[in-house]
Amino acid sequence: MVEAKQISKAVIKRLPRYYRYLGELLEENVERISSNDLSRKMHVTASQIRQDLNNFGGFGQQGYGYNVKYLYTEIGKILGLDTVHPMIIVGAGNLGQALANYSDFEKRGFKLAGIFDVNPVLEGISVRGIEIRMISELPEFLKNNHIEIAILTLPKNKAGEMADILIRNGIKAIWNFAHIDLDTPGDVIVENVHLSESLMRLSYNLSQYQREQDEKNNA
Amino acid sequence: MVEAKQISKAVIKRLPRYYRYLGELLEENVERISSNDLSRKMHVTASQIRQDLNNFGGFGQQGYGYNVKYLYTEIGKILGLDTVHPMIIVGAGNLGQALANYSDFEKRGFKLAGIFDVNPVLEGISVRGIEIRMISELPEFLKNNHIEIAILTLPKNKAGEMADILIRNGIKAIWNFAHIDLDTPGDVIVENVHLSESLMRLSYNLSQYQREQDEKNNA
Repeated sequence: MVEAKQISKAVIKRLPRYYRYLGELLEENVERISSNDLSRKMHVTASQIRQDLNNFGGFGQQGYGYNVKYLYTEIGKILGLDTVHPMIIVGAGNLGQALANYSDFEKRGFKLAGIFDVNPVLEGISVRGIEIRMISELPEFLKNNHIEIAILTLPKNKAGEMADILIRNGIKAIWNFAHIDLDTPGDVIVENVHLSESLMRLSYNLSQYQREQDEKNNA
Repeated sequence: MVEAKQISKAVIKRLPRYYRYLGELLEENVERISSNDLSRKMHVTASQIRQDLNNFGGFGQQGYGYNVKYLYTEIGKILGLDTVHPMIIVGAGNLGQALANYSDFEKRGFKLAGIFDVNPVLEGISVRGIEIRMISELPEFLKNNHIEIAILTLPKNKAGEMADILIRNGIKAIWNFAHIDLDTPGDVIVENVHLSESLMRLSYNLSQYQREQDEKNNA
């Protein structure tokens, strides 16, 4: 396997998008693609693509193109998608249930092993065949099951405390949807999805566009 | 109001986080805060904070600190949160309903005016008092209602076509949750939330951490 260490952070950030496009090409039974064709598809310059993908070696001669399956597989390995990552969801509200029902995650090795909530009304309800359990069962569950990732979809006033409980019980990676910056030890990986901040960026761009239109009309 | 134009993109990207922290301080009735105290809270250097917030003028004398409410209000204006943004959700599945139920958006001016889906089973079901309508009613609805933002939570095989319909009917901003890059005209603002890519970044970091641990153990 290609050494992941040599690859820059900027490239790593772009990898999921390459992985997605290469997966679509595979589904269309495309075996090879040139950097120019991929460039047109992805709206990235061909030279950027050549630079990025050269990290993975999977390039043929000039005019011959990339081996789609090889690149897809290598990038998948770098992204850790060649192994199963067992995960739990903590917070079985609308968002937690939406994520539980997202079967695409499982296809990529993210295997949902449990769903937890504090609300007794939800106890025992099944989501995609998995019964919602009470948070009180969480420490015992984590002792008996190897879980890598916890998806945290609790409201922000409960998320910090829950992150502490998860980490005390051995969780090393948190996918955080709570609108709060978690205070975690250095060896715990946190990936945040702050939906409100995304919506604010949209709103900023919209307002900025409207300001520019107003200026044009007043000019 | 402060001119938004002078402010760099990097600062703009950080604004929602400042806005969140300043909002929390307001809730705690904090009137003034020094860059050092805010630095400790946000885990950003005090000099970065001074540089960023100087864009908004709201700084007192040395040792006097920032006026929390003034900064909060100014940043809110820059982000376009001082006006109401009517929006619709297209795709009333789990994720669409989760977003519809997220009442925090409304507090910041993002007002949900309609929910649409293609599935007749969902027709007439109410989410937070708003009845789910069929997509066929969408063009007429957009003619009769001023809508700024469409939240797109359809599966990726339907999202592209739906984006075209939305744009043809005057939508200028799309908050896209479909796992696809939308092909839109230059004057349409798209903000993507690609959840799978976020999960892959988490998985990459987790795998990288495990590789490093393995190397340590083998050394």
